[in-house]
Amino acid sequence: MTEPKRVTAAVLIIGNEILSGRTQDTNLAHLARTLNGWGIQVREARVVPDLEAEIVEAVNTLRARHDYLFTTGGIGPTHDDITAGCIASAFGVELVLDERIAAVVRSRPSPPEVMAARLRMAQVPRGAGLIDNPQGPPGFCIGNVYVMAGIPRIMQQMLASLEGRLERGVVLRSRSITAYVSEGQIAQGLGAIQQRHPQLDVGSYPFHRDGRYGTTLVLRGSDEAALDTAAAEVQALVRTLGVEPEDIVAG
Amino acid sequence: MTEPKRVTAAVLIIGNEILSGRTQDTNLAHLARTLNGWGIQVREARVVPDLEAEIVEAVNTLRARHDYLFTTGGIGPTHDDITAGCIASAFGVELVLDERIAAVVRSRPSPPEVMAARLRMAQVPRGAGLIDNPQGPPGFCIGNVYVMAGIPRIMQQMLASLEGRLERGVVLRSRSITAYVSEGQIAQGLGAIQQRHPQLDVGSYPFHRDGRYGTTLVLRGSDEAALDTAAAEVQALVRTLGVEPEDIVAG
Repeated sequence: MTEPKRVTAAVLIIGNEILSGRTQDTNLAHLARTLNGWGIQVREARVVPDLEAEIVEAVNTLRARHDYLFTTGGIGPTHDDITAGCIASAFGVELVLDERIAAVVRSRPSPPEVMAARLRMAQVPRGAGLIDNPQGPPGFCIGNVYVMAGIPRIMQQMLASLEGRLERGVVLRSRSITAYVSEGQIAQGLGAIQQRHPQLDVGSYPFHRDGRYGTTLVLRGSDEAALDTAAAEVQALVRTLGVEPEDIVAG
Repeated sequence: MTEPKRVTAAVLIIGNEILSGRTQDTNLAHLARTLNGWGIQVREARVVPDLEAEIVEAVNTLRARHDYLFTTGGIGPTHDDITAGCIASAFGVELVLDERIAAVVRSRPSPPEVMAARLRMAQVPRGAGLIDNPQGPPGFCIGNVYVMAGIPRIMQQMLASLEGRLERGVVLRSRSITAYVSEGQIAQGLGAIQQRHPQLDVGSYPFHRDGRYGTTLVLRGSDEAALDTAAAEVQALVRTLGVEPEDIVAG
């Protein structure tokens, strides 16, 4: 049996507002969940400020390491929107006016100096393809890099438009078992389950809810039979402590 | 006049659950806001999976680049909690049992195999100092690296215990002006304000609220007089469009 193909991605979040704590990023979690559903695993993420040298370095490192790189932020019309120029620098190509995006921008009338600013959004690296945006100017892609807006609603619509355009690998499935036990109580048994199923990723996430401490055990992998076997083993482990686990949640 | 001293930090978020989208990270934003209040600027962040090679590489890169590195996640008692060992590897030192942490762990009685698992939390790199945790086993620090829990409530308490223990630099202040104008309308004028005040960081954040489009303009920097001047310029810019901006919010 051949190893199921893994397709991996990195996420690069661009913007001072994330690093100042002004804005709570939610794009990473949305990208991770959506891409995993398409068989693309997010393996690392970075957050960088609106500084060319840092963006270019991160883009070149991450696009070399992964099948895909998805960026969010910095593609609006203001002076601090420098992502397109940075991507062009990273690829060593010019920034050019894309007439397809320019047509979208020009379809909304503006005074000349406002139009000049808005046309910054039509500047993309030479050779870039487009990412549809039902609400306004498209994002773009070049090589294996997909460049999207930072505003979550727009980013989500751009991402949705990519469905079916990206290479798909194995989809990771999960089984989650929640039980009111402490991590310490199940640590040894859980380690043994991880050892018996090296093809799965066995994670343990403690929580405090309604005044009680509990742990959610999460099994992730592509082998559904192994997931079911390991989930049953986790349930049995919890029961050895005299605790009845909640039902297995499959994802 | 001497340049105000900048103290910078990176944040490293460790955990598969963040990269799978299962868990929404909130630690970065909390760290960024708290540290900035102490005069420490978060300049970059990374999210890595529970894999030793990736954690070690990120730790060594980030601790060399910044005055401080703060990590979250991976310091519990289960097999997937590998942060302490990775930090030891990054520093080229052994992992040793810290008797101070062990005493905290032993203060809560457990069966022997559970205690053995819980004592994993007392394994720290040789020479590490401690980070107080009122709820349980302490975190630790070594060199300029501060290693904290991933659970937000515990991380926040550990971070709070560091107040006064870290070097402080200049604190960045902000002025925010919200107005129901589009980014395109103010882009040109805003770029001119950024050029007139190169010591400030001028950011523009569009939003959609109650059916209306608007933009929040955020000025950040350490020079209060320049912030006030630039904020007045932003208000005047918005008024040239016939729009009355909301009051300036100082932060």
